[in-house]
Amino acid sequence: MPTSGLNVSRRIRRTPYTDQVEAHGVRGFSVVNHMLLPKAYQRSLQDDYWHLREHVQLWDVSCQRQVELRGKHAARLAQWMTPRDLRRAEVGQCLYVAIVDENGGMINDPLLLKLAEDRFWFSIADSDVLLWAKGLALGAGMEVEVSEPDVSVLAVQGPKAEDLMANVFGPGIRDVKFFRFAEFEFQGTRQLIARSGYSKQGGFEIYLNDGSLGSALWDTLWKAGQPFDVAPGCPNLIERVEGGLLSYGNEMTRENNPLECAMDDYCTLDGSIDFIGRTALQSLQRDGVQRLIRGVWIDGAPCPPCATPWPVVHNGVGDRQIGQITTAIYSPRFECNIGLSMIERGFWEPGQPVTVHSADGDRRGGTVTSLPFASPG
Amino acid sequence: MPTSGLNVSRRIRRTPYTDQVEAHGVRGFSVVNHMLLPKAYQRSLQDDYWHLREHVQLWDVSCQRQVELRGKHAARLAQWMTPRDLRRAEVGQCLYVAIVDENGGMINDPLLLKLAEDRFWFSIADSDVLLWAKGLALGAGMEVEVSEPDVSVLAVQGPKAEDLMANVFGPGIRDVKFFRFAEFEFQGTRQLIARSGYSKQGGFEIYLNDGSLGSALWDTLWKAGQPFDVAPGCPNLIERVEGGLLSYGNEMTRENNPLECAMDDYCTLDGSIDFIGRTALQSLQRDGVQRLIRGVWIDGAPCPPCATPWPVVHNGVGDRQIGQITTAIYSPRFECNIGLSMIERGFWEPGQPVTVHSADGDRRGGTVTSLPFASPG
Repeated sequence: MPTSGLNVSRRIRRTPYTDQVEAHGVRGFSVVNHMLLPKAYQRSLQDDYWHLREHVQLWDVSCQRQVELRGKHAARLAQWMTPRDLRRAEVGQCLYVAIVDENGGMINDPLLLKLAEDRFWFSIADSDVLLWAKGLALGAGMEVEVSEPDVSVLAVQGPKAEDLMANVFGPGIRDVKFFRFAEFEFQGTRQLIARSGYSKQGGFEIYLNDGSLGSALWDTLWKAGQPFDVAPGCPNLIERVEGGLLSYGNEMTRENNPLECAMDDYCTLDGSIDFIGRTALQSLQRDGVQRLIRGVWIDGAPCPPCATPWPVVHNGVGDRQIGQITTAIYSPRFECNIGLSMIERGFWEPGQPVTVHSADGDRRGGTVTSLPFASPG
Repeated sequence: MPTSGLNVSRRIRRTPYTDQVEAHGVRGFSVVNHMLLPKAYQRSLQDDYWHLREHVQLWDVSCQRQVELRGKHAARLAQWMTPRDLRRAEVGQCLYVAIVDENGGMINDPLLLKLAEDRFWFSIADSDVLLWAKGLALGAGMEVEVSEPDVSVLAVQGPKAEDLMANVFGPGIRDVKFFRFAEFEFQGTRQLIARSGYSKQGGFEIYLNDGSLGSALWDTLWKAGQPFDVAPGCPNLIERVEGGLLSYGNEMTRENNPLECAMDDYCTLDGSIDFIGRTALQSLQRDGVQRLIRGVWIDGAPCPPCATPWPVVHNGVGDRQIGQITTAIYSPRFECNIGLSMIERGFWEPGQPVTVHSADGDRRGGTVTSLPFASPG
């Protein structure tokens, strides 16, 4: 089967790049926003990790669907949807934002792109923000068009990304600053390109606005990337966890709030802006959150995949659970297992020893640390 | 890997039955509502089809998440969300409903369960109706609690389902009428059971309200089912297409309206009730829809899976496309391929000859028919 065991149908949408992804030997997919996300190619996860840190990769992250707000009340709706202060956001800027519900619970953690004073894109993680935004707009009688445009993101990630992109889009791409975007020409079309991406290795995201150009874009980058040892890739679990990049549905759900997710800097709670969940977040800030996202060094041999959360236990009387590992992986660079967990107040200081009840039945020693991970010793 | 090639993480949620499903040899999963849906066990699709028509199966359809509306404005919100007239809906009744947006576009096609005058469950297909309902309620300032309760549906489907269920829950289960539900005792708890399910072979759906009882429920039914040749199963593609059961995301998307989906009987457009999209649907009804869901007999050898839509073309001048097959499968009972497609006005009469451009590059003859499928000859 072309999709390596995952049953496919129209419901789980292919992307403009899936033909190329299959031609390049994809070994597995996940599903995000009702769309295929490649999860592995021919290399091992570790080889892929080292390659990403040294060269450049093409990632089909079309599943980062765009939710467009456009029209008279677009700015008002965007601000209502997030605790981040958008008053000074500029056209051409990307902002990492929390979308929360009336209890302050996380609904998504997208990148927000300001395209115009009356036009925004939320580049979303795995939940139907389209329905949330449409429901809010309809309920409140706002004049705003909410849609999912034909935009499919191809990420170019890794230290050689800038050289590769310059060869295809011209030297102007080098002037695009981090979390800024601009338009560039591709085969007679204008395409939005941002310096951003779900890795810490640098790179760009191309917001292709015409799905029929998917194969041409991939092939162009592939050909131009040959001198740079370009490879097909996807968000790398090792690199993501090392860098402390969170994943909606894994590290956080509606049960968590942005303060627990260490998004304090993106929450303006002084009353100067109004948004859904403000009262709840102000109250949480006043009382102090009860848990905080942290890294955990996990001892022992390379751990198995963390398919279901692993209890994190305090080594005291009664084995009190103080957290749960939601993602874990062996880091070949640190030569240690690393995991992400919300950790209870009182136990989240770096250096706190813990016990992790991993899936293999082992009880492993562990140590709490801040994010991103830095050398353990 | 336990999940047969699909990369797993907390984001793609396991269900209260996944341990049992794996123990019984599941061969593949799909993802619906951020949750695992088993897609195949050890039998072939055809053997599974015949078994379902003759015996009884246990289906883990926990991915049919419940979206609960509860409180003062629950009934008002439920009615606002669907064109189906709920004024005479009774407590204990299940209703198949369309949920549409302001343009009349399909957002979901759930079963609605009326639990009380002020409490409803939408048992949903694959889209985040929770966010839609929460957004509407928040936007409109309604006093209603919208939540996803700990409810995981285990379906018992097939002609022997009633006998099996009677052995476990007592003879009272036989009195539950089609699309009605009642409460039954299980290990000291009260559980809602409906006569319903995503097959035409009869059966029940158990809305287990405590995930920790998942294994106990599965094991109890499994043991009691031995005399009935019980098997693990899942919605069967052959049986579903034969029966004309639609799948959200496959046969319909937001691009379709409920009239095209042959849900006229569930749309009250005389102005006596108000709901989102009423004006759009009234206009569509007045003008007549431009396409209608139909079955298509497809000639030739058993067809490959329909991973992307196959054009349906009118055999006239210019090869005009009049539809697209969104699901197709070989029916061993009819000894013919069968497919589902929206078909354009003017071409949807049963008997209309068409050409289907299937994935294997073949151009196959085909014939439009009404649903459900009945013998082709």
